[in-house]
Amino acid sequence: MEVIMAKTVIVGGVAGGASCAARLRRLDEQAEIVLLERGPYVSFANCGLPYHVGGVIPERESLIVQTPEILHERFNLDVRVQNEALAIDRKAKTVVVRDETGREYRESYDTLVLATGSSPLRPPIPGIEAPRIKTLWSVPDADEIKELLTTVAVKSAAVVGGGFIGLEMADNLHHAGLRVSIIEALDQVMAPLDYEMALLLHENIRKNQVDLHLGDAVASFEDRGETVVVHLKSGRSVEAGLVILAIGVRPNSQLARDAGLELNARGGIVVDEHLRTSDPSIYAVGDVIEVKDFVFGDRTMIPLAGPANKQGRIAANNIAGEACIYEGTQGTSVAKVFSLSAASTGANEKSLERRGLQRGRDYESIIISQDSHAGYYPGVVPLMLKLIFSRDGRKIYGAQIVGRDLVDKRIDTIATVMRLGGSVLDLARLELAYAPPYSSAKDPVNMLGFVAENLLSGKVAISAWDEPEKDGEALVLDVREETEQMAYKTPNSIEMPLSELRVRLKELDPEKRYIIMCGMGIRSYVAQRILAQNGFKRLTVYPGGVRFYQPTHDAANK
Amino acid sequence: MEVIMAKTVIVGGVAGGASCAARLRRLDEQAEIVLLERGPYVSFANCGLPYHVGGVIPERESLIVQTPEILHERFNLDVRVQNEALAIDRKAKTVVVRDETGREYRESYDTLVLATGSSPLRPPIPGIEAPRIKTLWSVPDADEIKELLTTVAVKSAAVVGGGFIGLEMADNLHHAGLRVSIIEALDQVMAPLDYEMALLLHENIRKNQVDLHLGDAVASFEDRGETVVVHLKSGRSVEAGLVILAIGVRPNSQLARDAGLELNARGGIVVDEHLRTSDPSIYAVGDVIEVKDFVFGDRTMIPLAGPANKQGRIAANNIAGEACIYEGTQGTSVAKVFSLSAASTGANEKSLERRGLQRGRDYESIIISQDSHAGYYPGVVPLMLKLIFSRDGRKIYGAQIVGRDLVDKRIDTIATVMRLGGSVLDLARLELAYAPPYSSAKDPVNMLGFVAENLLSGKVAISAWDEPEKDGEALVLDVREETEQMAYKTPNSIEMPLSELRVRLKELDPEKRYIIMCGMGIRSYVAQRILAQNGFKRLTVYPGGVRFYQPTHDAANK
Repeated sequence: MEVIMAKTVIVGGVAGGASCAARLRRLDEQAEIVLLERGPYVSFANCGLPYHVGGVIPERESLIVQTPEILHERFNLDVRVQNEALAIDRKAKTVVVRDETGREYRESYDTLVLATGSSPLRPPIPGIEAPRIKTLWSVPDADEIKELLTTVAVKSAAVVGGGFIGLEMADNLHHAGLRVSIIEALDQVMAPLDYEMALLLHENIRKNQVDLHLGDAVASFEDRGETVVVHLKSGRSVEAGLVILAIGVRPNSQLARDAGLELNARGGIVVDEHLRTSDPSIYAVGDVIEVKDFVFGDRTMIPLAGPANKQGRIAANNIAGEACIYEGTQGTSVAKVFSLSAASTGANEKSLERRGLQRGRDYESIIISQDSHAGYYPGVVPLMLKLIFSRDGRKIYGAQIVGRDLVDKRIDTIATVMRLGGSVLDLARLELAYAPPYSSAKDPVNMLGFVAENLLSGKVAISAWDEPEKDGEALVLDVREETEQMAYKTPNSIEMPLSELRVRLKELDPEKRYIIMCGMGIRSYVAQRILAQNGFKRLTVYPGGVRFYQPTHDAANK
Repeated sequence: MEVIMAKTVIVGGVAGGASCAARLRRLDEQAEIVLLERGPYVSFANCGLPYHVGGVIPERESLIVQTPEILHERFNLDVRVQNEALAIDRKAKTVVVRDETGREYRESYDTLVLATGSSPLRPPIPGIEAPRIKTLWSVPDADEIKELLTTVAVKSAAVVGGGFIGLEMADNLHHAGLRVSIIEALDQVMAPLDYEMALLLHENIRKNQVDLHLGDAVASFEDRGETVVVHLKSGRSVEAGLVILAIGVRPNSQLARDAGLELNARGGIVVDEHLRTSDPSIYAVGDVIEVKDFVFGDRTMIPLAGPANKQGRIAANNIAGEACIYEGTQGTSVAKVFSLSAASTGANEKSLERRGLQRGRDYESIIISQDSHAGYYPGVVPLMLKLIFSRDGRKIYGAQIVGRDLVDKRIDTIATVMRLGGSVLDLARLELAYAPPYSSAKDPVNMLGFVAENLLSGKVAISAWDEPEKDGEALVLDVREETEQMAYKTPNSIEMPLSELRVRLKELDPEKRYIIMCGMGIRSYVAQRILAQNGFKRLTVYPGGVRFYQPTHDAANK
C-alpha cells in the first residue's frame, strides 16, 4: 500500500491554528504539518493580556501557553515563528513565506488552513500615530504598555472603546493604580448588552471613580510627549499618559483576498459548514471567518476564543477525513468589568429591533432580579437577568446577565438550553444543583422560566425599564413597606404596601394604568395578581423592582 | 354566576407546602387556603441549618425566611403553626388537627396537599436516647446543638453518617473549632458519588484533620454525661461531647398510610405525574413522595429542596385547573465539603451496575482532570469530572464533579443537557462563556464531550481508576518529564517522557498492554495516539493522570 504523506500548512499559530495543528497530529501521526506564525509566539494567552498589564497575572511567562519547542516535541509540528505568509499560489498549491531574516521562500501544501485572526482597528484619526497610543493584541503589545507603566510610571490612561477589551483594559489599568477614562462613541458600553443592562455597568464604572464619556467620539489626538490629549467631538478633551485604542477589530484577510478567495462585505472569509473556503483545498477558522449566526441562521462575524478553538478542531477533523460540521456561533461571552461580571448569549433586543421585530408583537423580553445564592448565606449579591424569546415561548433569542457573582454559570445554563433548541418552559423544568453557597432552591434560571411562563399564560405583563417615564398615562404603584419607601423614593408613585393592598383596594381605580414597583419584582407580581383578579386590566410589573430602577435611572440621569 | 369558594388545606409549611400555598394564591385570589405546620416555623431555611450551627450564618433570624404574619399579609393564607394533622377522613373530606394548646378540631377541605416531608432516622441502637445525641432537621434542633456548643463549650463531635447532611455538619463543626470524627458504615462518603470520586473527598477530609471511620457501623452508644462513647462494630470507639446522627431520612407518611393512601415499599406516597395521590382530592409533594427517576423512568425517592419547591408549584397549578406535569427528579446536587465542592446529577456507575449494566458493554464512563478556569489566571484549581453514558453516546446517564471551585456551574451545564435529552456530542458543541477568570476557551464540559467523542470513535480507551493494580498484565507507561517523575513516582512504571516517545518507540513492545499516565491525562492521550498509529493495540489512558491517581491511591491505601 502506498502511503500518501499529506501535507497541511497552517497560517496563524494562536487559538484556531494551534488547535487545528494539535488535533490534526492526534488524528494523523504521519501527516506533515507546518505551522506558520508571523509573530514571535504561538499559542499565547491573548485573553490574558489585559490581566498581565494590570498585574493580576504577574508572570509574563505564564502567558506563553506553548512554545514552538514543546509543540515540536509533543506534536511533531514544524513550527516557524516570525514566518509570515505573503501570498498563496492556489494553482501551484504553494504559499510564499518571509522568514525572520527577511528571506522569502515557497512552501507547498496539500491542504492550507488560514487562521490569520484579526487585528485591532487604527482608523485614520488625526494624531493617531502618537507613540503613547497603543493597542493590545499580542505579547509585544503588552510588553510596550507594561514598559510605560513601570519605567515611565504613567499615572493616567484613556481607553477609547467600551467593548470587551476596552473594559478589561480599563479595569486592569484602574487595578494597577492609574486614573482611567473610558471614551465610547455609542451611548453605552458593551454592545452585546441592551442599553438598560449596560446602565448597570455605567453606574459601577463611575462608582469606581473611572470617567466615562459616552456618546462622544474622538475627533483628534494631540501628542504632547509625556501625554496625549484626546479631543472629543463634543469639544471636551481628556489628557492621559497612555491611550489604549480598543474600538474593534478587522479580519486579517488580505492574504485570502489577494488569493481570490470569497470574502464577505466586512472582509470575512466565506466558509461552508465544513469550514472550507471557496477553494476546496483551503480551510479557514477563527476571527478571520464569517460564521453562521446560531440564532437566526444568517451569516455574521463573531471574533471569540471559544469558537475559534472549536473551529480549529473541526477543520482538523475534516482534513483528516472525518466529516464534521460547525453549527454556528451564538456569541456566548462574559467579562469581568470592575466589581461586576457581564455576560450574554444570543441576540439582544437591539438586534431584534434592527431586524424589524417588535416587542409584544414578535418577541417578549423580561428582566428579573435574583440573588446570586441563598439570601441567608454570606456573600449574597444581586443578579439582574434579561431573557428575550419568541411570542410563543418556543425560541429563546438571547439572554444577558449582570451581577457580582455566579453570573457566568447562569449564562452557561441558558446558552446550553439555546444550543439544544429548548424553550422558555424548559428553563422552568431544569433541575440545577442547589446548596446555600451556590444557588437557591429555585435557581435564577428557573425563575426566568417561571416568569416567562406566567407572561405567556397572561398572568403577568412586564414593563420596559423606562416605561414609568415614557408612558404618560401610567401611575407607579409602589407596594414596598413604608421603611423601604423612606429609604428610596420612586418618583411620582402611589405608595401602598402589599400588606395593605387587599384592604385599600378601593383607593385605586380599575380603569387606570398602573406600573407596580417593589424591591426586586416579587411582591409587585403578587400585587399584580391581586389587582388582576379584582378587575384591574392595565397592569405591568416593573422588572427587577427598585434594585433595577435605582441604578439604571441614576446612571441614565448622569 | 355562583362563586364556588374552593378550599385547600396544605399539611406541612416548609419547602413544598409553602411554595404550593403561595403559588395557589397567586393563581386564585378567592381560594381559601389553610396551611398547617406542626413545628413552630414555616418556610424556614432548612438547608442553612448546618451553616448556622457552624457560625457561618450568625443570625438565627436569617433562617426564618417567612413568618406566618408575612404569609398572611402577602398571600392571605390562614397559617397555623404548631398545628399537627393527626388523621384524614377522606369520606368526609376533613382533617383532624391538634392545635398548640392540645385541643383537637376538624378542618374540612376540597383539596388536600400533603407536604409532610421527611424525618431523620433514629434506629434502635443501644444507648441512642443519650441527650447528647442529636439530629439536625429543624430550627429547634439547631438551637439545641448551638446551645451545647456555646453554653457547655463542647470540644469534640462525632458525626454518624457521611451523606450530605453529615458532611455539611462535619464541615461546619470543624469550622466552629471542634475536633470532628465522621463514622460511615459504607466504604465511602457521599453515596451519589462513585467510590473513586469519593476518595478525593476522603483525602481532603483527612487533610483537614478530621477522623474518618469508613466501613464501620455503630454498635452502641455509651452515655458518660459530658461525653458519649460511640462503640463501633470493628471494636474501635470514638468519644465525643456531641454526636450528630445523619444516617438518612424516612418519609413522614404515617398520616397518608393511616388514611389508606397508596405508599411504596419505602413508605413514600405514590403519586401520578400530576402529583395526585391514589385519592384524587389529595395531592402530595416533597420528600414524602415517590418520584419518577428522570434517567431510568422508574420510581424512586430523592429528598431534595429544589424538586420539592418545583413540585409545590406544579401541585398548585393542577389544583387551580392548569394541568401541569412533574417530569421526574434527576438528583442534581452539590455540597461544600471542607475545601472541596462535590456535585452530581443522574445515575452513578454503582447504580448502573446494580441494574446489571456493564461498563464497556452497556455503558462507558470517563474521568478527566481539568482546570477550574484559565491556567494562567490566579486561583486556578483542579477539577475532576466523571461522565457516564450509553455505549452509543446518545444518552447521558450521569456526571460527578469534585474540585475546589466552579464545580456547581459545570454540573448545571451537564444537568441541563441531560434534561433536554442531549447526547455526549452535544457537550462538545456547547458554546459556553469564556474569559480567563471564569473558564477556558474549551470549557471542562466541552472537554468531556471531546473525550467521549474520541472514545466513541475508537480514538482512545480510558482505564478504570484502579486498573494499574487490577490488571496484572498491564504496564504503566509514565510519559511525564523527568522532573515530574522525580516529584511523584508512579509505582512499577516505565518512564518515557512524551518528548522522547517517538524516538524511543522501539523500546516498547506493541504486543504488550500499556496504561499511559501523565500529569492530568492530556499528554497520555497524545502518547496513546502516537502508539496506536504505530501498531500498538492494547492501550488505555489513565484518567486524570497523576492528579487523579495520587489522591485516590493515597486515600485508598489509608
